[in-house]
Amino acid sequence: MTRSEGSEDGIRLAVSTVILTMRRDGSAAPRIALPLVRRTRAPHAGDWALPGGWLDVREGLAAAAARTLAETTGLAPSYLEQLYAFGAVDRAPGRVISVVYWALLREDLVDQQLAERRSAGVEIENVEWFDASDLPTLAFDHARIVEYAAWRLRNKAGYSRVAQGFLPPEFTLADLREAYETILGRKLDPANFRRQVDATRTLIPTNAFRTGSHRPARLYRDATDVELADRGPLASDETRTS
Amino acid sequence: MTRSEGSEDGIRLAVSTVILTMRRDGSAAPRIALPLVRRTRAPHAGDWALPGGWLDVREGLAAAAARTLAETTGLAPSYLEQLYAFGAVDRAPGRVISVVYWALLREDLVDQQLAERRSAGVEIENVEWFDASDLPTLAFDHARIVEYAAWRLRNKAGYSRVAQGFLPPEFTLADLREAYETILGRKLDPANFRRQVDATRTLIPTNAFRTGSHRPARLYRDATDVELADRGPLASDETRTS
Repeated sequence: MTRSEGSEDGIRLAVSTVILTMRRDGSAAPRIALPLVRRTRAPHAGDWALPGGWLDVREGLAAAAARTLAETTGLAPSYLEQLYAFGAVDRAPGRVISVVYWALLREDLVDQQLAERRSAGVEIENVEWFDASDLPTLAFDHARIVEYAAWRLRNKAGYSRVAQGFLPPEFTLADLREAYETILGRKLDPANFRRQVDATRTLIPTNAFRTGSHRPARLYRDATDVELADRGPLASDETRTS
Repeated sequence: MTRSEGSEDGIRLAVSTVILTMRRDGSAAPRIALPLVRRTRAPHAGDWALPGGWLDVREGLAAAAARTLAETTGLAPSYLEQLYAFGAVDRAPGRVISVVYWALLREDLVDQQLAERRSAGVEIENVEWFDASDLPTLAFDHARIVEYAAWRLRNKAGYSRVAQGFLPPEFTLADLREAYETILGRKLDPANFRRQVDATRTLIPTNAFRTGSHRPARLYRDATDVELADRGPLASDETRTS
């Protein structure tokens, strides 16, 4: 393949990131939320867009996603995974292929990172957080991209331990169930859930308990030596409830 | 975002396709195989590469994958899915991002399509089929790409009906189990397999039977109104045998 064999002229490559967190305001049920950046220039000036930017010729795709995410939102996810390359001919003026990443970030780390940026004098402008289920007008095909990311998250919850991305290293079974319920948008039976989690043997009980207004709940942590995929506690649940 | 905001200069966009079939030679166990194209020019002249080519500025990504696959191999898959965008800085001279697709094609359709091309006078040159487990020297990072596609296939077999992509519209449970065994590289217990398939309710028994040297085996077809993902007959198997 030489340059003259094909036409790449006029094709530009961008990266964007859908970074999701699970937010809890007061006692309400938690919700999936993401940061968007308000566009200050045409096209789509005033609309909201995913954090992102152009790929630099000397940087890898994931590195570009992390860099542009940090530049626009101040956030650094612990987990970043490629979602999809969007390349419809008419998705933007000219021809732009967007390689989109998705990331999960715990709410407490979001707060911590933004506080660190503020104390370092970094100003994050034109960024707001929105509920994934209540989005403003999005630029380009970004509404479709967010929709696809939310689908991937739900889908992945069926066969991997993706929900743990919203939780601190130690959590109760109720915390884990709530994360899955938030992702899937439906209630799960606590006894069934516990049985399925037990069957996967991916959680390690600690000797610590959370105490409070309820009876003490044991804290668990992830068995990090077990592969993430194919073993989610909801895999057989998804089949059974179909 | 305007052109001056970022540098896309020198970044070229290619598409490639990993198209897999399940081949059976005589009575041997079937194997996963794929077509590769021998490179006739530098870089990597003489090495084998995935079918592909440059993205045209006026064509969608999947359309480009289908076009370049047809141009190089004469094949037209019934199913084409984006695999991943590979973009390491040093993967090719210059900077080339390859959006890679993967496809499954039944062996009988491979033979049929190639026969049609031949009778239409189309010459397919420099293409050979290789076992996925016994590949020649591949150009660029294509060995890693094929490895990733094989992993995705195995992984996907755990939670979707991907194995059906290797089978004709009507098949026996033994056919389906053999396809899963070929993908996963291990034997599955026939009774367990049947129970799991039954539980997913994704197969519809027909009134037809295959007869031959064994006792007649009922033919099944896919329940095409059921979603592909999250309901694979092996989802709970993968969990149990872990």
